[in-house]
Amino acid sequence: MTLPAEHTFPRVSPALLERAQAALEQVLSPGQVRRDAATLESYAEDESDSGVYPPDLVVFPENTEQVSAVFRTCQALGVPFTPCGARSGKSGGALPLLGGVAVSLERMNRILSVSGEDLTAVVQPGVITGDLMKAVEAQGLFYPPDPNSWEFCTMGGNVAENAGGPRALKYGVTRDYVIGLEWVLPGGEVLRVGRRTIKGVAGYDLVGLFVGSEGTLGVATEITLQLLPKPRHVKTALVIFDSVHTAARAITAVLKAGILPRTLELIDDVALQAVDGRGFNFPAGAGSAVIAEVDGNMEEGLFAELAWLGEICEQHGAREVLVAQDESQREKLWAVRRVVSTALRSLRPHKISEDIAVPRSRIPDIILALKKMGEELGLLVATYGHAGDGNLHANILYEGPYQRALVETAIRRMLELTVSMGGTITGEHGVGHAKREYLAMEQSEAVLELQRRLKGFFDPSGMLNPEKIFPAPKCS
Amino acid sequence: MTLPAEHTFPRVSPALLERAQAALEQVLSPGQVRRDAATLESYAEDESDSGVYPPDLVVFPENTEQVSAVFRTCQALGVPFTPCGARSGKSGGALPLLGGVAVSLERMNRILSVSGEDLTAVVQPGVITGDLMKAVEAQGLFYPPDPNSWEFCTMGGNVAENAGGPRALKYGVTRDYVIGLEWVLPGGEVLRVGRRTIKGVAGYDLVGLFVGSEGTLGVATEITLQLLPKPRHVKTALVIFDSVHTAARAITAVLKAGILPRTLELIDDVALQAVDGRGFNFPAGAGSAVIAEVDGNMEEGLFAELAWLGEICEQHGAREVLVAQDESQREKLWAVRRVVSTALRSLRPHKISEDIAVPRSRIPDIILALKKMGEELGLLVATYGHAGDGNLHANILYEGPYQRALVETAIRRMLELTVSMGGTITGEHGVGHAKREYLAMEQSEAVLELQRRLKGFFDPSGMLNPEKIFPAPKCS
Repeated sequence: MTLPAEHTFPRVSPALLERAQAALEQVLSPGQVRRDAATLESYAEDESDSGVYPPDLVVFPENTEQVSAVFRTCQALGVPFTPCGARSGKSGGALPLLGGVAVSLERMNRILSVSGEDLTAVVQPGVITGDLMKAVEAQGLFYPPDPNSWEFCTMGGNVAENAGGPRALKYGVTRDYVIGLEWVLPGGEVLRVGRRTIKGVAGYDLVGLFVGSEGTLGVATEITLQLLPKPRHVKTALVIFDSVHTAARAITAVLKAGILPRTLELIDDVALQAVDGRGFNFPAGAGSAVIAEVDGNMEEGLFAELAWLGEICEQHGAREVLVAQDESQREKLWAVRRVVSTALRSLRPHKISEDIAVPRSRIPDIILALKKMGEELGLLVATYGHAGDGNLHANILYEGPYQRALVETAIRRMLELTVSMGGTITGEHGVGHAKREYLAMEQSEAVLELQRRLKGFFDPSGMLNPEKIFPAPKCS
Repeated sequence: MTLPAEHTFPRVSPALLERAQAALEQVLSPGQVRRDAATLESYAEDESDSGVYPPDLVVFPENTEQVSAVFRTCQALGVPFTPCGARSGKSGGALPLLGGVAVSLERMNRILSVSGEDLTAVVQPGVITGDLMKAVEAQGLFYPPDPNSWEFCTMGGNVAENAGGPRALKYGVTRDYVIGLEWVLPGGEVLRVGRRTIKGVAGYDLVGLFVGSEGTLGVATEITLQLLPKPRHVKTALVIFDSVHTAARAITAVLKAGILPRTLELIDDVALQAVDGRGFNFPAGAGSAVIAEVDGNMEEGLFAELAWLGEICEQHGAREVLVAQDESQREKLWAVRRVVSTALRSLRPHKISEDIAVPRSRIPDIILALKKMGEELGLLVATYGHAGDGNLHANILYEGPYQRALVETAIRRMLELTVSMGGTITGEHGVGHAKREYLAMEQSEAVLELQRRLKGFFDPSGMLNPEKIFPAPKCS
């Protein structure tokens, strides 16, 4: 779904654009500067459904020096520039809102090293996350963060957005694995920050600040990652409940009992009805399902842990616990989760997916509150996602653009409910363009202003990825 | 050991001090402002052995408003002020180098909440780390970071220094558990940053930037922590090797095999000789030992994992693998590790302990290189520590102050060797005062200058914890 752009941003003048193109062609070779309509169109959108914003030029630097030269050139001319990767982001972080230059890091796509002894990898930003996963797994190693888009998103994008995924429950998010960066600041200066060791506390944690800065404080041109040994065994179960409320309470009980699965994915009644019959038939009366997955090196221990998890779920009202006995059964269970997003579109032609997170104890409350809100507004709400860590994808399903005002009311109310329960408006997708106007619900004006000033500290001209994350200051 | 201060810093004038005291007595009650000699003396040192720097005044705020008022008062008068906790730091971060006001957070020592459902805790900065551990463990929860000083260090200090510990190998460091902060900026502004949810990516990671900022960017007045379920079982083994080189290679093999113990603590030959006979007798020919500890919920699985670890060690030359069969045996094995630091003092009257970290593959190399360096300089070097993550405590043992120049040569050479192997000069203790002059070995002038400017961004007057972390800019 594409909502028309709400704001009309000023564009770069044709004369300035000509100068920018000429200057960029000085620092890059001809095939690295594109201006054809097809290219501009394909860099105008991401997966956030938050508008179409074509850049005026797209450049494809192939090394750090070229990235730096592009940044310097744009700064010198006063042309806005916006880094991008696979454009799989869900918050519009890679959208060139003011036009100008889209800086694609796609061509810097080499895995530079993988060390089984150091348990580290060094990659360029254009490396596809799934390619890294496969490369390290081939050596018995493990890169845990698994954003849903892992088959096509890039590591540079994962760093910019601090990407999460289902396995975050046990293993954390991208930031937990980035230990060093080669980083190009907005003005084009190239720095090496962080380290090559697993531990280290020398100086301020610039790596931590840059990861998740959504392309507004610079861009990574080389990423040093911490890896883990790959767990030898993974065991998966699908647990079926009468209602999402029962399921949510069982999830809390599992965690409270001391079990830390690598994933605890929840599917509510609406989502369950949508996927039922698509390769998997739920028993009559099923109103919610949880996919629980544990991993480790000792197979018997894992089966025992999963059995224990199943018992706790049954004590908390589970109807059935299906444990995958082999890889093909496991695949079948995960297919249920993967088909949710597509299946929901069969219920209503349009859907907006939000990415809220609440303290774990509030999971049952928020799910119920969102259902009630949907009923009041006459909209179908489907909730699924990483319930184990409180990060839920709440989807508003609707008929067509004529309901837009209603959908916007629903989004605002959903985020208000989330914040009122101690939650955050974004668990893993970022603020970017899509949630900029909502950030003030969660953060005080003083915190917003500090961050605006921090952006100004790194990028005084504001040419890098403008109009992102922070709402315009309130007029007093 | 106390080295005399190398630098003489300017002190606050008596007249200004009188004004500061009067102003602070306006915002605090009488018992909260101290100037007696005993108090000043006890706030003049920490555990870094890097000098004696008495403050001129010590204040004990009891709530956030008072901390803010103290900061504002000091800024308004231009009096340096330095936050402190238990003064157990190993890098001099809490030393008031320029005198002025020491701001003790000790009285803000309440555990505000522990939630088994949310898996979170909220604490004040003066809470003793060990008290938090016990409070959460009583509810079946787990706060993993375990700095050696956990029985007396405070959570505020742990946040300031981003404290680590043996369990960091599996569980990470303080930063990995801090999700939200109430933070007083150098100018006295109070902010709430971060979140109460496990996941969240709204705005810049100010929490990440503040944790580990060593008391130079402000101070935490409330800390929201993520907890884990407490693992039900812990199993411990002591593995004995002929030499530290063999032990280091076995550690690498264990990790490469896919085992991730919660600790892998190494003791080299010098340290082993020092502890031998102190409650534990090593077999003849023992030249190194490793304490390996695994944890989880399934007891049989853990014994199997530890047995597998033992096999790998034996394949790599271990002489003996002793598995603790109960808690008292486990305690006995850990006593070996705990007595190391004290026992080394029996070999030579003085010792300097460094806190280096290298990429894991370089552990055998750095240990050998340090031994060789010690032989060349005629100093005894003992290495022990968290070898699993490459973080080693390398100790230089010496006879007396007359060897000071030699010791300084050794420290510089040790850090040079570390950096040349891709390592860092501080794995978990911080830079503070003790390692300030060495930071430029590891970080470029551009990175240092960016951090100095960032300090200036948050603290334009430079009154908060002055002369820390970053060396003075090079004169060109």
